[in-house]
Amino acid sequence: MKKDLPEDTVFELEKRLRQISVAIKKRGRKILTNYPITPSQFIALQWIIDDQDLTIGELAKKIGLAFSTTTDLINRMEANGLVQRNKDEKDRRIVRIRALAKGERIIKEVIDERREYLGRILQSFNLEQTEQLTQLLSLLYDTMHRENERDD
Amino acid sequence: MKKDLPEDTVFELEKRLRQISVAIKKRGRKILTNYPITPSQFIALQWIIDDQDLTIGELAKKIGLAFSTTTDLINRMEANGLVQRNKDEKDRRIVRIRALAKGERIIKEVIDERREYLGRILQSFNLEQTEQLTQLLSLLYDTMHRENERDD
Repeated sequence: MKKDLPEDTVFELEKRLRQISVAIKKRGRKILTNYPITPSQFIALQWIIDDQDLTIGELAKKIGLAFSTTTDLINRMEANGLVQRNKDEKDRRIVRIRALAKGERIIKEVIDERREYLGRILQSFNLEQTEQLTQLLSLLYDTMHRENERDD
Repeated sequence: MKKDLPEDTVFELEKRLRQISVAIKKRGRKILTNYPITPSQFIALQWIIDDQDLTIGELAKKIGLAFSTTTDLINRMEANGLVQRNKDEKDRRIVRIRALAKGERIIKEVIDERREYLGRILQSFNLEQTEQLTQLLSLLYDTMHRENERDD
Protein backbone atom coordinates (compact mmCIF):
# COMPACT_ATOMS: atom_id res chain seq x y z
CA MET A 1 0.00 0.00 0.00
CA LYS A 2 2.50 2.61 -1.18
CA LYS A 3 1.29 6.19 -0.80
CA ASP A 4 2.24 9.13 -2.96
CA LEU A 5 4.75 10.79 -0.71
CA PRO A 6 6.62 13.41 -2.77
CA GLU A 7 10.31 12.48 -3.15
CA ASP A 8 11.29 16.10 -2.46
CA THR A 9 9.69 15.91 0.98
CA VAL A 10 11.72 12.85 1.94
CA PHE A 11 14.89 14.57 0.60
CA GLU A 12 14.21 17.66 2.66
CA LEU A 13 13.29 15.76 5.82
CA GLU A 14 16.41 13.59 5.66
CA LYS A 15 18.58 16.68 5.07
CA ARG A 16 16.97 18.69 7.89
CA LEU A 17 17.29 15.84 10.39
CA ARG A 18 20.95 15.44 9.38
CA GLN A 19 21.73 19.17 9.64
CA ILE A 20 19.97 19.52 13.00
CA SER A 21 21.75 16.48 14.39
CA VAL A 22 25.16 17.87 13.29
CA ALA A 23 24.41 21.31 14.78
CA ILE A 24 23.30 19.90 18.16
CA LYS A 25 26.23 17.49 18.31
CA LYS A 26 28.73 20.23 17.53
CA ARG A 27 27.47 22.24 20.49
CA GLY A 28 27.63 19.27 22.84
CA ARG A 29 31.15 18.39 21.79
CA LYS A 30 32.53 21.77 22.75
CA ILE A 31 32.57 20.30 26.26
CA LEU A 32 34.86 17.46 25.14
CA THR A 33 37.82 19.80 24.59
CA ASN A 34 37.98 20.03 28.41
CA TYR A 35 38.39 16.25 28.73
CA PRO A 36 41.11 13.81 27.62
CA ILE A 37 38.72 11.68 25.54
CA THR A 38 38.92 10.90 21.80
CA PRO A 39 35.87 10.96 19.49
CA SER A 40 35.94 7.11 19.26
CA GLN A 41 35.99 6.81 23.05
CA PHE A 42 33.10 9.26 23.28
CA ILE A 43 30.97 7.27 20.80
CA ALA A 44 31.70 4.00 22.63
CA LEU A 45 30.96 5.60 26.00
CA GLN A 46 27.51 6.73 24.82
CA TRP A 47 26.61 3.17 23.80
CA ILE A 48 28.00 1.72 27.06
CA ILE A 49 25.81 4.08 29.09
CA ASP A 50 22.68 3.81 26.92
CA ASP A 51 22.65 0.04 26.56
CA GLN A 52 24.30 -0.98 29.88
CA ASP A 53 26.30 -4.14 30.52
CA LEU A 54 27.34 -4.67 26.90
CA THR A 55 29.99 -7.25 26.11
CA ILE A 56 32.92 -6.20 23.88
CA GLY A 57 31.42 -8.21 21.03
CA GLU A 58 28.05 -6.44 21.36
CA LEU A 59 29.76 -3.03 21.55
CA ALA A 60 31.91 -3.81 18.47
CA LYS A 61 28.72 -4.46 16.50
CA LYS A 62 27.06 -1.24 17.70
CA ILE A 63 29.99 1.03 16.79
CA GLY A 64 30.90 -0.87 13.63
CA LEU A 65 34.50 -1.67 14.55
CA ALA A 66 36.39 -4.99 14.55
CA PHE A 67 36.50 -6.99 17.78
CA SER A 68 40.26 -6.45 18.19
CA THR A 69 39.99 -2.67 17.60
CA THR A 70 37.16 -2.49 20.13
CA THR A 71 39.25 -4.42 22.69
CA ASP A 72 42.09 -1.88 22.24
CA LEU A 73 39.59 0.95 22.63
CA ILE A 74 38.20 -0.50 25.88
CA ASN A 75 41.76 -1.02 27.20
CA ARG A 76 42.49 2.67 26.65
CA MET A 77 39.15 3.71 28.15
CA GLU A 78 39.83 1.52 31.20
CA ALA A 79 43.29 3.14 31.61
CA ASN A 80 41.56 6.53 31.23
CA GLY A 81 39.23 5.70 34.17
CA LEU A 82 36.08 5.89 32.01
CA VAL A 83 34.89 2.26 32.20
CA GLN A 84 35.60 -1.03 33.91
CA ARG A 85 35.22 -4.70 33.00
CA ASN A 86 32.88 -6.71 35.23
CA LYS A 87 32.23 -10.44 35.28
CA ASP A 88 28.62 -11.34 34.58
CA GLU A 89 26.94 -12.38 37.85
CA LYS A 90 25.19 -15.38 36.34
CA ASP A 91 27.96 -16.57 34.02
CA ARG A 92 31.45 -15.59 35.25
CA ARG A 93 32.97 -16.39 31.85
CA ILE A 94 31.17 -13.38 30.30
CA VAL A 95 32.75 -9.94 30.72
CA ARG A 96 30.53 -6.86 30.62
CA ILE A 97 31.59 -3.22 30.29
CA ARG A 98 30.22 -0.67 32.70
CA ALA A 99 30.81 3.11 32.78
CA LEU A 100 32.54 4.59 35.83
CA ALA A 101 31.53 7.90 37.48
CA LYS A 102 34.01 9.88 35.35
CA GLY A 103 32.56 8.45 32.13
CA GLU A 104 29.01 9.11 33.25
CA ARG A 105 29.86 12.69 34.18
CA ILE A 106 31.33 13.45 30.75
CA ILE A 107 28.26 12.14 28.90
CA LYS A 108 25.93 13.98 31.28
CA GLU A 109 27.71 17.28 30.68
CA VAL A 110 27.63 16.81 26.91
CA ILE A 111 23.89 16.06 26.95
CA ASP A 112 23.24 19.00 29.32
CA GLU A 113 25.03 21.29 26.89
CA ARG A 114 22.92 19.95 23.97
CA ARG A 115 19.71 20.51 25.94
CA GLU A 116 20.70 24.01 26.92
CA TYR A 117 21.40 24.83 23.27
CA LEU A 118 18.11 23.31 22.09
CA GLY A 119 16.19 25.15 24.83
CA ARG A 120 17.75 28.43 23.66
CA ILE A 121 16.76 27.72 20.05
CA LEU A 122 13.19 26.80 21.06
CA GLN A 123 12.70 30.26 22.57
CA SER A 124 11.83 31.26 18.97
CA PHE A 125 8.99 28.69 18.84
CA ASN A 126 5.54 29.17 20.29
CA LEU A 127 4.22 26.51 22.66
CA GLU A 128 1.97 24.93 20.04
CA GLN A 129 4.86 24.52 17.60
CA THR A 130 7.05 22.97 20.29
CA GLU A 131 4.34 20.52 21.28
CA GLN A 132 3.62 19.58 17.68
CA LEU A 133 7.29 18.97 16.98
CA THR A 134 7.63 16.78 20.07
CA GLN A 135 4.56 14.73 19.13
CA LEU A 136 5.65 14.26 15.51
CA LEU A 137 9.20 13.25 16.46
CA SER A 138 7.86 10.78 19.04
CA LEU A 139 5.60 9.30 16.39
CA LEU A 140 8.52 9.11 13.95
CA TYR A 141 10.74 7.38 16.49
CA ASP A 142 8.04 4.94 17.61
CA THR A 143 7.44 3.95 13.99
CA MET A 144 11.18 3.39 13.47
CA HIS A 145 11.38 1.38 16.65
CA ARG A 146 8.48 -0.86 15.64
CA GLU A 147 9.96 -1.43 12.17
CA ASN A 148 13.39 -2.28 13.66
CA GLU A 149 11.83 -4.82 16.01
CA ARG A 150 10.04 -6.43 13.10
CA ASP A 151 13.37 -6.66 11.22
CA ASP A 152 15.29 -8.28 14.11
CA MET B 1 12.79 37.46 27.35
CA LYS B 2 12.88 33.87 28.66
CA LYS B 3 9.67 31.96 28.07
CA ASP B 4 8.30 29.17 30.24
CA LEU B 5 9.29 26.21 28.13
CA PRO B 6 8.84 23.05 30.25
CA GLU B 7 12.21 21.39 30.92
CA ASP B 8 10.64 17.97 30.22
CA THR B 9 9.81 19.07 26.67
CA VAL B 10 13.40 20.05 25.92
CA PHE B 11 14.58 16.74 27.44
CA GLU B 12 12.18 14.77 25.27
CA LEU B 13 12.96 16.71 22.10
CA GLU B 14 16.73 16.32 22.53
CA LYS B 15 16.29 12.60 23.19
CA ARG B 16 13.98 12.05 20.22
CA LEU B 17 16.28 13.92 17.83
CA ARG B 18 19.23 11.87 19.11
CA GLN B 19 17.40 8.53 18.81
CA ILE B 20 16.11 9.31 15.32
CA SER B 21 19.52 10.42 14.14
CA VAL B 22 21.11 7.18 15.45
CA ALA B 23 18.42 5.02 13.82
CA ILE B 24 18.76 6.72 10.42
CA LYS B 25 22.55 6.65 10.55
CA LYS B 26 22.59 2.96 11.43
CA ARG B 27 20.52 2.18 8.33
CA GLY B 28 22.79 4.26 6.10
CA ARG B 29 25.93 2.62 7.41
CA LYS B 30 24.77 -0.86 6.45
CA ILE B 31 26.04 0.14 3.00
CA LEU B 32 29.54 0.77 4.34
CA THR B 33 30.16 -2.91 5.03
CA ASN B 34 30.37 -3.29 1.23
CA TYR B 35 33.23 -0.74 1.03
CA PRO B 36 36.78 -0.69 2.39
CA ILE B 37 36.26 2.53 4.36
CA THR B 38 36.65 3.09 8.12
CA PRO B 39 34.17 5.15 10.21
CA SER B 40 36.75 7.98 10.54
CA GLN B 41 37.26 8.06 6.77
CA PHE B 42 33.49 8.14 6.28
CA ILE B 43 33.05 11.10 8.66
CA ALA B 44 35.90 13.02 6.97
CA LEU B 45 34.50 12.22 3.53
CA GLN B 46 31.10 13.70 4.44
CA TRP B 47 32.73 16.98 5.47
CA ILE B 48 34.95 17.06 2.36
CA ILE B 49 31.88 16.69 0.13
CA ASP B 50 29.58 19.04 2.09
CA ASP B 51 32.05 21.89 2.54
CA GLN B 52 34.17 21.49 -0.64
CA ASP B 53 37.81 22.50 -1.05
CA LEU B 54 38.69 22.29 2.65
CA THR B 55 42.33 22.50 3.68
CA ILE B 56 43.64 19.81 6.08
CA GLY B 57 43.67 22.40 8.88
CA GLU B 58 40.01 23.28 8.27
CA LEU B 59 39.04 19.60 8.11
CA ALA B 60 40.95 18.84 11.34
CA LYS B 61 38.84 21.48 13.13
CA LYS B 62 35.55 20.13 11.72
CA ILE B 63 36.18 16.52 12.75
CA GLY B 64 37.90 17.42 16.03
CA LEU B 65 41.17 15.59 15.37
CA ALA B 66 44.79 16.82 15.61
CA PHE B 67 46.40 18.18 12.43
CA SER B 68 48.90 15.27 12.27
CA THR B 69 46.15 12.64 12.74
CA THR B 70 44.09 14.32 10.01
CA THR B 71 47.12 14.32 7.67
CA ASP B 72 47.52 10.54 8.25
CA LEU B 73 43.81 10.07 7.62
CA ILE B 74 43.96 11.99 4.32
CA ASN B 75 47.05 9.99 3.26
CA ARG B 76 45.11 6.76 3.76
CA MET B 77 42.02 8.16 2.00
CA GLU B 78 44.19 9.25 -0.93
CA ALA B 79 45.73 5.76 -1.13
CA ASN B 80 42.17 4.37 -0.98
CA GLY B 81 41.20 6.47 -4.05
CA LEU B 82 38.56 8.45 -2.13
CA VAL B 83 40.09 11.95 -2.30
CA GLN B 84 42.92 13.90 -3.87
CA ARG B 85 45.00 16.92 -2.87
CA ASN B 86 44.75 19.92 -5.21
CA LYS B 87 46.76 23.14 -5.22
CA ASP B 88 44.61 26.25 -4.75
CA GLU B 89 44.29 28.05 -8.08
CA LYS B 90 44.89 31.50 -6.63
CA ASP B 91 47.56 30.60 -4.10
CA ARG B 92 49.59 27.52 -5.11
CA ARG B 93 51.03 27.19 -1.58
CA ILE B 94 47.59 26.19 -0.25
CA VAL B 95 46.49 22.54 -0.63
CA ARG B 96 42.79 21.71 -0.77
CA ILE B 97 41.14 18.29 -0.47
CA ARG B 98 38.61 17.21 -3.04
CA ALA B 99 36.54 14.01 -3.18
CA LEU B 100 37.05 11.67 -6.15
CA ALA B 101 34.23 9.83 -7.94
CA LYS B 102 34.62 6.75 -5.71
CA GLY B 103 34.27 8.88 -2.57
CA GLU B 104 31.24 10.70 -3.94
CA ARG B 105 29.58 7.41 -4.91
CA ILE B 106 29.92 5.97 -1.40
CA ILE B 107 28.37 9.03 0.26
CA LYS B 108 25.57 9.14 -2.30
CA GLU B 109 24.68 5.49 -1.69
CA VAL B 110 24.65 5.98 2.07
CA ILE B 111 22.35 9.02 1.80
CA ASP B 112 20.11 7.16 -0.69
CA GLU B 113 19.77 4.32 1.81
CA ARG B 114 18.86 6.77 4.58
CA ARG B 115 16.22 8.40 2.37
CA GLU B 116 14.74 5.07 1.39
CA TYR B 117 14.48 4.09 5.04
CA LEU B 118 12.90 7.42 6.04
CA GLY B 119 10.45 7.21 3.11
CA ARG B 120 9.40 3.74 4.29
CA ILE B 121 8.83 5.01 7.84
CA LEU B 122 6.83 8.00 6.59
CA GLN B 123 4.31 5.68 4.95
CA SER B 124 2.73 5.56 8.44
CA PHE B 125 2.25 9.36 8.45
CA ASN B 126 -0.57 11.20 6.74
CA LEU B 127 0.34 14.02 4.34
CA GLU B 128 -0.52 16.76 6.84
CA GLN B 129 1.74 15.25 9.49
CA THR B 130 4.60 14.92 7.01
CA GLU B 131 4.22 18.52 5.89
CA GLN B 132 4.02 19.80 9.47
CA LEU B 133 7.13 17.88 10.44
CA THR B 134 9.06 19.24 7.44
CA GLN B 135 8.02 22.81 8.22
CA LEU B 136 8.87 22.56 11.91
CA LEU B 137 12.27 20.99 11.25
CA SER B 138 13.06 23.66 8.65
CA LEU B 139 12.13 26.34 11.16
CA LEU B 140 14.28 24.65 13.82
CA TYR B 141 17.26 24.43 11.49
CA ASP B 142 16.90 28.01 10.24
CA THR B 143 16.83 29.27 13.83
CA MET B 144 19.98 27.25 14.64
CA HIS B 145 21.69 28.56 11.53
CA ARG B 146 20.87 32.18 12.40
CA GLU B 147 22.12 31.73 15.97
CA ASN B 148 25.35 30.10 14.77
CA GLU B 149 26.03 32.97 12.38
CA ARG B 150 25.52 35.44 15.20
CA ASP B 151 28.04 33.52 17.32
CA ASP B 152 30.75 33.38 14.64
